[in-house]
Amino acid sequence: MDFEAMQGFLTEHFPQGEQYGELLQLGDGWALMKLPVDDQHLRPGGTVSGPAMMGLADVALYAALLSKIGPVPLAVTTNLNINFLRRPRPDADLLARAKMLKVGKRLGVGEVYLFSEGAEDDPVAHATLTYSIPEPGAR
Amino acid sequence: MDFEAMQGFLTEHFPQGEQYGELLQLGDGWALMKLPVDDQHLRPGGTVSGPAMMGLADVALYAALLSKIGPVPLAVTTNLNINFLRRPRPDADLLARAKMLKVGKRLGVGEVYLFSEGAEDDPVAHATLTYSIPEPGAR
Amino acid sequence: MDFEAMQGFLTEHFPQGEQYGELLQLGDGWALMKLPVDDQHLRPGGTVSGPAMMGLADVALYAALLSKIGPVPLAVTTNLNINFLRRPRPDADLLARAKMLKVGKRLGVGEVYLFSEGAEDDPVAHATLTYSIPEPGAR
Amino acid sequence: MDFEAMQGFLTEHFPQGEQYGELLQLGDGWALMKLPVDDQHLRPGGTVSGPAMMGLADVALYAALLSKIGPVPLAVTTNLNINFLRRPRPDADLLARAKMLKVGKRLGVGEVYLFSEGAEDDPVAHATLTYSIPEPGAR
Repeated sequence: MDFEAMQGFLTEHFPQGEQYGELLQLGDGWALMKLPVDDQHLRPGGTVSGPAMMGLADVALYAALLSKIGPVPLAVTTNLNINFLRRPRPDADLLARAKMLKVGKRLGVGEVYLFSEGAEDDPVAHATLTYSIPEPGAR
Repeated sequence: MDFEAMQGFLTEHFPQGEQYGELLQLGDGWALMKLPVDDQHLRPGGTVSGPAMMGLADVALYAALLSKIGPVPLAVTTNLNINFLRRPRPDADLLARAKMLKVGKRLGVGEVYLFSEGAEDDPVAHATLTYSIPEPGAR
Repeated sequence: MDFEAMQGFLTEHFPQGEQYGELLQLGDGWALMKLPVDDQHLRPGGTVSGPAMMGLADVALYAALLSKIGPVPLAVTTNLNINFLRRPRPDADLLARAKMLKVGKRLGVGEVYLFSEGAEDDPVAHATLTYSIPEPGAR
Repeated sequence: MDFEAMQGFLTEHFPQGEQYGELLQLGDGWALMKLPVDDQHLRPGGTVSGPAMMGLADVALYAALLSKIGPVPLAVTTNLNINFLRRPRPDADLLARAKMLKVGKRLGVGEVYLFSEGAEDDPVAHATLTYSIPEPGAR
């Protein structure tokens, strides 16, 4: 899938899509997405909430996976592991750089770095996720 | 903290609180919380979104931790691992049963079973989380 | 598989088997295994090594899985998450209580509590694992 | 710590050290280690065992951590998450490239890529680990 097809797919399948993030770049097995941070994502103390970060990581790796296997709406997350490393900046948007580590017939595994825009060397979180890919006949 | 103190604490510190869940029961090192499922949490296909489930697990274990250490607003999640097991029922609320496995001076570790109300024997997800507990002087 | 069939299977397929543990009990979707602790598993300071604990958790959940699906040698671990909670006692054997949370057609997910014999209420570690189950035709 | 100091430290603190791996390179917050694969690490079917891979990942990230904080024998692993991606080659040694993602006062978090020598682009496993760093007074 190319960039425009992916944008269309995400918009169609995530009607609440932009609450998870917007696609910035897409490559072969990787994606860069952005979550515009506003009050809705903030926790007391002015930091981005954990669920908002996890949602962004999830969608970003989903885009990375689909760049390899095409538009498969029924691929589902089976495992997510996330380490929260630093406090995101409350005044910067959140970026997610997602990359597949393996795309098999049944499972896709990848990792995501989350960072505040402008501070890419100090990730705020790192996640690994597994997606289960339905059999062609079951799609 | 008893049930009413915890309710007050969660309401104060999570102004968007009820979007994560409401406290049903609280014990010594455990908590039962509920997420009333509505459209806001649904994904295409009519299932509860992953981030909604992760948010509920996070808050439920936070309550379980605070039942042991008292009201510490600065305890932060450092790791979350979640396995998605089954599709939640779109027409049932989501429950989270959280239990601490260890509460040390610096770290609290626990697990959470998530299930659709009325189907407790078939959990829809299982999560383990680690919280970092600030030093008394830093609170 | 019953207890004796499982013992035979583990002995056949893990010739270095007893370095991982011995089967104590087996039920429908669960298993209890034991690692006799000796110098080979100890780290400096006299505690059981992490890899020895992870190996025990892995075999114990494998037995729990096979109790549901029968003797499938090609089931492989795809994900393991472990939280180390307390220092095991160097003078006690290590026990693993493994239980399946879900057994699907393609994936089996379960959890394992590890504890020193005689101290079951204070687990030394907790692990969750995912096994990939080969298709019947591929076994 | 430089390369030679680290080698000495690992040899002293892991008398069974070479069963986990040998240090090849050491940098500021990263390490490259190697596990010479022999029968002891193999499972039926001729593949490297999971515990051997986890042990190598653990030691490699420990070296990466110590490159930042110096020789702290009491740093302990609190969480390990590993995704097994591909079958390692039975006839190649196993390499681990470990890198810290964050080194705080209390916690160090990092990731490890494991691959068969000569096939670096296709990792056989990916792990993230958390180490708890004792307070200076407690060391």
